[in-house]
Amino acid sequence: MGGYPDDLQRLVEDHLGRLTYSRRDATAGLEEAMRYSLLAGGKRIRPVLCLATGRAVGIDPPELLDISSALELIHTYSLIHDDLPCMDDDDLRRGRPTSHVAHGEDVAILAGDALFAEAVRLACVQPGRPERVLAAVREITAATGVDGMVGGQYIDVTGEERDPGALRRLHSLKTGRLIAACVGAALAIAGLSPERQAPYRRFATELGLLFQIVDDILDVTGSEEELGKPSGSDARHGKVTYVSLHGVDRARELAAESHRAALAALAEAAGETDTLRRIADFIFTRTS
Amino acid sequence: MGGYPDDLQRLVEDHLGRLTYSRRDATAGLEEAMRYSLLAGGKRIRPVLCLATGRAVGIDPPELLDISSALELIHTYSLIHDDLPCMDDDDLRRGRPTSHVAHGEDVAILAGDALFAEAVRLACVQPGRPERVLAAVREITAATGVDGMVGGQYIDVTGEERDPGALRRLHSLKTGRLIAACVGAALAIAGLSPERQAPYRRFATELGLLFQIVDDILDVTGSEEELGKPSGSDARHGKVTYVSLHGVDRARELAAESHRAALAALAEAAGETDTLRRIADFIFTRTS
Repeated sequence: MGGYPDDLQRLVEDHLGRLTYSRRDATAGLEEAMRYSLLAGGKRIRPVLCLATGRAVGIDPPELLDISSALELIHTYSLIHDDLPCMDDDDLRRGRPTSHVAHGEDVAILAGDALFAEAVRLACVQPGRPERVLAAVREITAATGVDGMVGGQYIDVTGEERDPGALRRLHSLKTGRLIAACVGAALAIAGLSPERQAPYRRFATELGLLFQIVDDILDVTGSEEELGKPSGSDARHGKVTYVSLHGVDRARELAAESHRAALAALAEAAGETDTLRRIADFIFTRTS
Repeated sequence: MGGYPDDLQRLVEDHLGRLTYSRRDATAGLEEAMRYSLLAGGKRIRPVLCLATGRAVGIDPPELLDISSALELIHTYSLIHDDLPCMDDDDLRRGRPTSHVAHGEDVAILAGDALFAEAVRLACVQPGRPERVLAAVREITAATGVDGMVGGQYIDVTGEERDPGALRRLHSLKTGRLIAACVGAALAIAGLSPERQAPYRRFATELGLLFQIVDDILDVTGSEEELGKPSGSDARHGKVTYVSLHGVDRARELAAESHRAALAALAEAAGETDTLRRIADFIFTRTS
């Protein structure tokens, strides 16, 4: 019944491990840097969310592995660039030296760039009706651009958003839109009508918010061992978070509200939504 | 008869100037950095090449503006990242401070990242049969990844290629594949058979090579005023070039050979290839 969908995580992990990008010796070092960050573990929440959405709307998870993996490649690229000295300047990620520490800044930037390009290339070979695949690729890249992940990171590093409403907008761009696109990509491939998509999309929006609130709480309450990086890094970077604005207790209430709203949206969705519910429960209760 | 197709360049320039990415105030600075580099002038060879290929195979140039513009956004992103302190560390580009000098390293990296995402998003809305648009997007991103532009830049910064054959491979990845994709994207949208595509693809490969040889020659023989950046920068970076390997005279002969081979391929192509010939002539004789 319960628990994180380990079967889907394993499916993703195996697929990511098998990906290769070139047979050229001269770029082997670049591929090594890409794999170093891509295969550093983690719960693979984004691709698992995509596969679970597929399962809910009638697509067998193995059939969605190309576009799901693309989402993890994009997430990995964003982590590499966010960690750079001129951005968050983080030395540790998932218990290991960050990409630029391990490979140098130039190779780290290029590894991120290459992961992004290879992600889109992979998304383009996703099986399905071409107009649906194209819609999914469009949704993913829109979630990654100015009005998405990169725009959110820009707001974060330039520190232009300081009030609670603005914080929500920042996170909706920086992490929310890509999480929503994980759900949206599967809906696009399935070719669902806008009406049938609507509750899934509300679920995805709440899930993105929940994810960020919990992330902010864990940065304060988690141990370095659990997080794989020093805790309290948000405060050190002077970042505005749900905890800095509201305190831990109120942030926990906000997380509970988001969790309830996500499950309520799911209850209105037609399909086998049990796996999606388990992902929402996991995100709400995770400790690292 | 002759001369660079200024009509197509104007079409591209107008379209690039009209592009917007978000209406959000908080990311206005990011968009400004993107436009600073995107609208810095230049001959717009990549999109013009795409439009000219379209004209040759029966697609009216204005109908190809989305995917053509995407190619220029990708080119611009690559220049911004190549100029970074940890890469080529260039302060000047087209007579103006480079992106990281004008906007800071963090914003420069994000401007490049955003241009890439917005490029793919734009390519996805290119009008045409979905399977053809998807094939074009796949071709463009393949030309941009490990086995393309980013892989070539990796080889360039890590300096692993030192002999003439390796130099040709480096440039075929770093600049050749994206130039080939400018032609290939238009062929894909037109849905040409592989047989009818073949001479155009040979033309594109030779054109990419010609472009690079001339670029290497101009870096030595051009003035700072003409180039918009200090000449001799390849030598200062210790780069292996067609000139460093063969000397200027032999490099000029190699350029003439490539130019002849490009025109010979074009002579075998069915279609109105006059505009493509003029682009090849321009690339061969350009002085900046």
